[in-house]
Amino acid sequence: MSVAQRAVRIREVGPRDGFQNEPERIPTGDKVRLIEALARSGLRRIEVASFVRPDVIPQLDDGIEVLRSVRLPADVELMVLIPNMRGLDRALEVRDRFHEAVIFVSASETHNRHNVNRTVAESMASNDAVTARISAEGLRCAAVIATAFGCPYEGRVPMERVFALAERFVEAGAVEIGFGDTTGMGNPAYVRDFFAAAAQRLPGVELTAHFHNTRGQGLANAYAAWESGCESFEASFGELGGCPVPPGATGNVATEDLVSMFHEMGISTGVSLPDLISAARAVQDLLGRRLTSHSIIAGPIAWEPVGSGNLRGAHT
Amino acid sequence: MSVAQRAVRIREVGPRDGFQNEPERIPTGDKVRLIEALARSGLRRIEVASFVRPDVIPQLDDGIEVLRSVRLPADVELMVLIPNMRGLDRALEVRDRFHEAVIFVSASETHNRHNVNRTVAESMASNDAVTARISAEGLRCAAVIATAFGCPYEGRVPMERVFALAERFVEAGAVEIGFGDTTGMGNPAYVRDFFAAAAQRLPGVELTAHFHNTRGQGLANAYAAWESGCESFEASFGELGGCPVPPGATGNVATEDLVSMFHEMGISTGVSLPDLISAARAVQDLLGRRLTSHSIIAGPIAWEPVGSGNLRGAHT
Repeated sequence: MSVAQRAVRIREVGPRDGFQNEPERIPTGDKVRLIEALARSGLRRIEVASFVRPDVIPQLDDGIEVLRSVRLPADVELMVLIPNMRGLDRALEVRDRFHEAVIFVSASETHNRHNVNRTVAESMASNDAVTARISAEGLRCAAVIATAFGCPYEGRVPMERVFALAERFVEAGAVEIGFGDTTGMGNPAYVRDFFAAAAQRLPGVELTAHFHNTRGQGLANAYAAWESGCESFEASFGELGGCPVPPGATGNVATEDLVSMFHEMGISTGVSLPDLISAARAVQDLLGRRLTSHSIIAGPIAWEPVGSGNLRGAHT
Repeated sequence: MSVAQRAVRIREVGPRDGFQNEPERIPTGDKVRLIEALARSGLRRIEVASFVRPDVIPQLDDGIEVLRSVRLPADVELMVLIPNMRGLDRALEVRDRFHEAVIFVSASETHNRHNVNRTVAESMASNDAVTARISAEGLRCAAVIATAFGCPYEGRVPMERVFALAERFVEAGAVEIGFGDTTGMGNPAYVRDFFAAAAQRLPGVELTAHFHNTRGQGLANAYAAWESGCESFEASFGELGGCPVPPGATGNVATEDLVSMFHEMGISTGVSLPDLISAARAVQDLLGRRLTSHSIIAGPIAWEPVGSGNLRGAHT
């Protein structure tokens, strides 16, 4: 493996995908403080706002204020989620405060209808127009395809349907395609085959994996995607986020668990794991409940010899 | 891949490795009820007792009573952990109630000393004698090597040291070697290489992977081991268990998450996932705290189309 391959890019989506799932809106000042903490940990791609209808997701109705308030190093790139032209209009009020726009569709009709109240065809027609305007504004455009590994309503989703949507996004001007395992239905064998096929179908396009840890397989899927050449990942600090289907399911794979795994494999992420864990513990403290991230408890592995206590008990 | 390869064997260690880590001793009747529930889910190898000194691990001081009380189908094999000859003496009081004896050592000196108050050489000398007697009793003998993927006190543990211990166990009569990631220090790239090398070094020996989910990598490690040919896994329902180092760290990979992953990959386990999740929820109810298993919340994937609700919210 060449040195150039021994790094992955991580996009932190907690401030968008995580905060939108909290029952109470997180105060804007706390959002800003946490985003700045994430950037201090070394994360250089952070999705911080979503310009969906404020009455539908009041948790994120302060996107413009968040974008205006955060103070970040010059090399941090901020993403915003754009559901439609009206959302893009609002985002462009703060055009100079972000770097990339993320558009999306669900690969399955039923999920798309329930998610955004449109058919897939309607969403893609809208996305074509939105992408053209994003490009005209000189902004980078990334697209995410939700339910790419399975739909809670329709079951299996053919790879071919996902790749056809991806190709249309690329034709319209998207330079990156994210594949979302929205309700955690991917498994590592399928993911391995999926990313191998995607690399064949979409040469030259940045392919990004977005896994949920719904049944604990998030890191297994990330490893399998990486084995098939994927080098770009989305994750959410604290394992924040989730989806109402199935009810109560946990969220995105935890950024700190993902970073821990890659660092242990000798793969660079540019992130300070202790600082990232501090940020995850800060959001856990703010929310006042135990989050499902594992590294948040265990901390980074101490590979240097440490002092020892008495652990008598036949541990295996 | 042949049909014969499309199955894995799972040994449930929750009643031993999980229950020993609970602050309060679980009542014997509850242990028996939970073991019987695990067997009803289809698990056919269950580790149910540990004959360590009762004053050191009072949580497991009722091993003989548990073994005498459980009522199980004839094809369920029970394992007991044997730390030394005195422990074997006690276990043999109920010789007809179990099928396999599991012996162990830590690959690192410091962990072995803290775990059982002996040097590795002392443990191996004892294990030789114990193995001979286990074999003479007509019982199957499995050995587990703890800290095989890293030691919290000494850091990295050379593969060669682990394999040398494994070979000695096999020479003494063990027919199965388990490799324990006692404090969750393995990563999938290392695990992949480890099991590939182990298969070369230990032909004809059943090689078993025992991963902890300390930093969320448990299933990623299991997948990587499986990719390298490993077909035998230990796990603990509810993600029970753990180790005092680091403090508060979560436990073994959850059996229900492991079963879910393999089933989704098309690999058979012989287990009914819904019944196993019921058993995990039962132990969660008994302990009265939220366990860290993920499938315990999400349940099995529903691949058949289901009814749908309103999830509006731009989920990716």
